[in-house]
Amino acid sequence: MQGIAFRAATEDDLPAIVEMLADDPLGREREAPGMPLAAAYRAAFAAIDADANQLLAVAEDAEGVVGTLQVSFIPGLSHTGAWRGQIEGVRIAARRRGSGLGAAMIEWAVAQCRARGCRMVQLTTSKSRGDAQRFYDRLGFRATHEGYKLSL
Amino acid sequence: MQGIAFRAATEDDLPAIVEMLADDPLGREREAPGMPLAAAYRAAFAAIDADANQLLAVAEDAEGVVGTLQVSFIPGLSHTGAWRGQIEGVRIAARRRGSGLGAAMIEWAVAQCRARGCRMVQLTTSKSRGDAQRFYDRLGFRATHEGYKLSL
Repeated sequence: MQGIAFRAATEDDLPAIVEMLADDPLGREREAPGMPLAAAYRAAFAAIDADANQLLAVAEDAEGVVGTLQVSFIPGLSHTGAWRGQIEGVRIAARRRGSGLGAAMIEWAVAQCRARGCRMVQLTTSKSRGDAQRFYDRLGFRATHEGYKLSL
Repeated sequence: MQGIAFRAATEDDLPAIVEMLADDPLGREREAPGMPLAAAYRAAFAAIDADANQLLAVAEDAEGVVGTLQVSFIPGLSHTGAWRGQIEGVRIAARRRGSGLGAAMIEWAVAQCRARGCRMVQLTTSKSRGDAQRFYDRLGFRATHEGYKLSL
């Protein structure tokens, strides 16, 4: 996608990432985007950064960070020992929504999974996000599973 | 649960685990339980074992291994930097199905997530597994998400 670069996030990207996580109907109830940034975000970044099987990524245009997602590379026994790539925390900055950036970013993430030898890419999306469901349907994902959560 | 121990799996447990993965309506089409065990299973076990954020577990009774699941501990930024525990590959040996072992094993896995500071436990289950859905509903999980997969 012209004028857009995808790359691993650095700690300097954290405020922009948290702002995108918070600028969302579900995110605004559970994130703390104010500065100075909550220590929990810095601790989470350090844990992600220390784990070779986690890839926190950003999309950047000439004006700054405009998208984010996280890929977890998960080894497993099922499917005859298949690695899975799992995508979480997908957000596009308001000024770039509807530009095709989301599709380009997911395609980039899928390519990272392929390069790491994953045989499957998986993600869940809230049943309240109808637009997201149509988006993943269009990208060839299939909603074959129920996604269960238990809060602790 | 009386007479049952839950513990991290060792490489010696692999044949029993693979046999359980294969003894399943979906698993029998995608697993290779014959001996000698496919090299891909040994490679997958090595990758799981080398990753401090993966816990492959078994349940054992006096006669041997009778259950398995994998927990992935995933650091993330969303939910103000929450760790998640993710459960995959849940199987109970045919001779112990219907005994309450599945519920005990999930409760043990949830306790591992709690001990690691996770604020959420998540899993997906195929929409074709109606019994599994009722099982997770009973255990307090909520099917709030659509689970998407893309095969590579």
